[in-house]
Amino acid sequence: MNVETLIHARWVIPVAPDNRVLEGYSIAIQHGRIHDILPTEQAREKYQAEIEHELGSHALIPGLINAHTHASMSLLRGLADDLPLMTWLNDHIWPAEGRWVNEEFIADGTRLAVAEMLRGGTTCFNDMYFFPDITGLVSSAAGMRAVIGLILIDFPSAWANDADEYLHRGIEVHDQFRNNGLITSAFAPHAPYSVSNAPLERVRTLADELDIPIHMHVHETAEEIAQGLENFGTHPLDRLHDLGLVSPSLAAVHMTQLEEDEIARFAETGASVVHCPESNLKLASGFCPVGRLIDAGINVAIGTDGAASNNDLDMFSEMRTAALLAKGVSGDASAVPAATALRMATLNGAIALGIADETGSLETGKAADITAVDLGTLETQPLYHPVSHLVYATGRDKVTDVWVAGRQVVNHGVLTTLDQNEILSHAAEWNRKIAEIDELLEFT
Amino acid sequence: MNVETLIHARWVIPVAPDNRVLEGYSIAIQHGRIHDILPTEQAREKYQAEIEHELGSHALIPGLINAHTHASMSLLRGLADDLPLMTWLNDHIWPAEGRWVNEEFIADGTRLAVAEMLRGGTTCFNDMYFFPDITGLVSSAAGMRAVIGLILIDFPSAWANDADEYLHRGIEVHDQFRNNGLITSAFAPHAPYSVSNAPLERVRTLADELDIPIHMHVHETAEEIAQGLENFGTHPLDRLHDLGLVSPSLAAVHMTQLEEDEIARFAETGASVVHCPESNLKLASGFCPVGRLIDAGINVAIGTDGAASNNDLDMFSEMRTAALLAKGVSGDASAVPAATALRMATLNGAIALGIADETGSLETGKAADITAVDLGTLETQPLYHPVSHLVYATGRDKVTDVWVAGRQVVNHGVLTTLDQNEILSHAAEWNRKIAEIDELLEFT
Repeated sequence: MNVETLIHARWVIPVAPDNRVLEGYSIAIQHGRIHDILPTEQAREKYQAEIEHELGSHALIPGLINAHTHASMSLLRGLADDLPLMTWLNDHIWPAEGRWVNEEFIADGTRLAVAEMLRGGTTCFNDMYFFPDITGLVSSAAGMRAVIGLILIDFPSAWANDADEYLHRGIEVHDQFRNNGLITSAFAPHAPYSVSNAPLERVRTLADELDIPIHMHVHETAEEIAQGLENFGTHPLDRLHDLGLVSPSLAAVHMTQLEEDEIARFAETGASVVHCPESNLKLASGFCPVGRLIDAGINVAIGTDGAASNNDLDMFSEMRTAALLAKGVSGDASAVPAATALRMATLNGAIALGIADETGSLETGKAADITAVDLGTLETQPLYHPVSHLVYATGRDKVTDVWVAGRQVVNHGVLTTLDQNEILSHAAEWNRKIAEIDELLEFT
Repeated sequence: MNVETLIHARWVIPVAPDNRVLEGYSIAIQHGRIHDILPTEQAREKYQAEIEHELGSHALIPGLINAHTHASMSLLRGLADDLPLMTWLNDHIWPAEGRWVNEEFIADGTRLAVAEMLRGGTTCFNDMYFFPDITGLVSSAAGMRAVIGLILIDFPSAWANDADEYLHRGIEVHDQFRNNGLITSAFAPHAPYSVSNAPLERVRTLADELDIPIHMHVHETAEEIAQGLENFGTHPLDRLHDLGLVSPSLAAVHMTQLEEDEIARFAETGASVVHCPESNLKLASGFCPVGRLIDAGINVAIGTDGAASNNDLDMFSEMRTAALLAKGVSGDASAVPAATALRMATLNGAIALGIADETGSLETGKAADITAVDLGTLETQPLYHPVSHLVYATGRDKVTDVWVAGRQVVNHGVLTTLDQNEILSHAAEWNRKIAEIDELLEFT
């Protein structure tokens, strides 16, 4: 039989079913989907392909899913670090956003982020930012899968002036991408402390009607919880429960400082958590009790957060930090083993975003979202367990080839759908403009 | 004037003096030492060089110093993960060591480790393992700087049978490398729980006589402290104080679970701490209170630990984890800023190892131990502060060129002193042998 693409690999690690490492396997791609996964010897007999790849020292894994980003903030990468959260926001990030965020900023920033993510093996991201239509158009044009956040916040911005306008524009954006195979949308109310009850109730209704997820920062810091108690008389998470927002469609990002009964109640709802370990560490936000969440049966995905607070969009590093930090925080070296971390960075992300029928694992019928990682270099020798190396020893620099919906978007490390020089030149222009305004900090 | 080498770079970040970023600077190397650091325009007028490098998008930093390794354990990389410490040691690491450790294992394992470290921008490592003579010979032949540990442990091994023999062989190794410009030595009593008082007292005397440092695991886990209380009636650290071992020549590795008065007493002695954040996380050993140690004026260096417990020898990743984790653990986003992390990974390491006159910073007269990092790629754009990107956004894969004592050991990413294919082939052979014996674990 003829197929579009055949990839022969040393290992195929499908993530679903669990704990499977297929050695000497191949993937056949047809119409952008995984048509077959079978031993290479059989694949060579059964299929003829237009394009055939021999990846003899590589592992094929599901394309990584970055479950929480503010993609275009890549243009603010490293603008200000090592500062208390409110100094960082008040003196640097919010002034920069107020001055610079417009459609061009979003387009250039998203393109830079998409380039970084694709090259690092990430095939899908879940974004929350202004001008989600631009984010969707840029991602789609680059052949990258994205869930674009229909942002909602009590404060006016360049994107909308009030809750009505945020929701109205959000629904327009949702409709705009209704027939786009790569772009889906989610409501993205910013956080409990920045969105009032009335618009949150409307989000609940609209999300049900449109059948899309809700993507929200929840319990990022101890201060947020203290403020919630003061302003609403409850923990922010309890307030969300009361508003009916905690359901299988919720992807709650950060989730630090959780009490036992909060974890149990959250688990009962079937909602997901998106863990951003490096952002939580860098901003000293507190620890998400990942081990306990998983033990409670909660679906936990992984996100990098924006490059202004991370300072990269590297899901390999994030996956590793998640696996390491969970052990340190729980005091249990067996918490979040390598295979769990890989699942969090792939299938669990797809579940959290409501797209697990489409992506998140290497299974027949799903979209061919595939990342090839070279495990044959010095840094990953010897090799006793490929999944261990994927999480603990390799990095995004070992990603050689990436496919999204069967289209090869990275070929031997080179982006095929984006003009790298153009992206660099736009980034340099923004760099010059933004640096002129931001008072450069002395490193201390 | 004629010099051997001229390197023109976009930035030179000397680490000493503090907080200096020199833009458009060059380094002149003569007789393996830094002869001059000056603006590129002046350098082009003042010097003619046999070899000239144009690194227009790069930062030159001091070669990184990995202040705690078990280099040849690279052959056990990823053999067993996600296990409680004692299961890991008893069921996997110690049996593997007992069976495999011999001169060939040390030579092949060290060569693999040296290759990985050099390519990742590390120019010096502080090792603790059996057959330190082999480690010294392999490193020296590869042109890498090393401090080899004169290992001492109460238990017999392939290297020595009792304390007398360990010390005797150690002193022989020290003498063997007395005139080697790249190799120095340190006494390396394994840990308070594995070395008795009598040999520790001899180490104290011998280290003074030979004027070399003492490199020791101290307070790695809560269990170690509890055992110390039970067996000796004191905290292990207090016992080391009583034995006179805590002095400026001590590099105490790990140092978790420290109480306030322990920190104050340690600070008074002028001893150093070697922080291994990723190993501490992975083995759930506890948190080293790095922010408080620095506030107390203690010199804190960074090490990766062995690749069996990390699972790499990547000082960029370790530096980043150190900077991030310190913030999370202290709850202070300003703890261990980027410049501090870079200093910990360079000059502080040299101070801890007693070689700060020779290396650890880019200063005239010091050995030319230099790492060039390309900050011109997508992943580090825009760039507002180069030191931020070195710690938070870049990785070892951006290291292009490395010099040790003026000799270029990595050239455009390629090792110049080692045969990569030979290293890979030896690693594959060990892989096969070791995997046959170790019962392969199912990832769970």
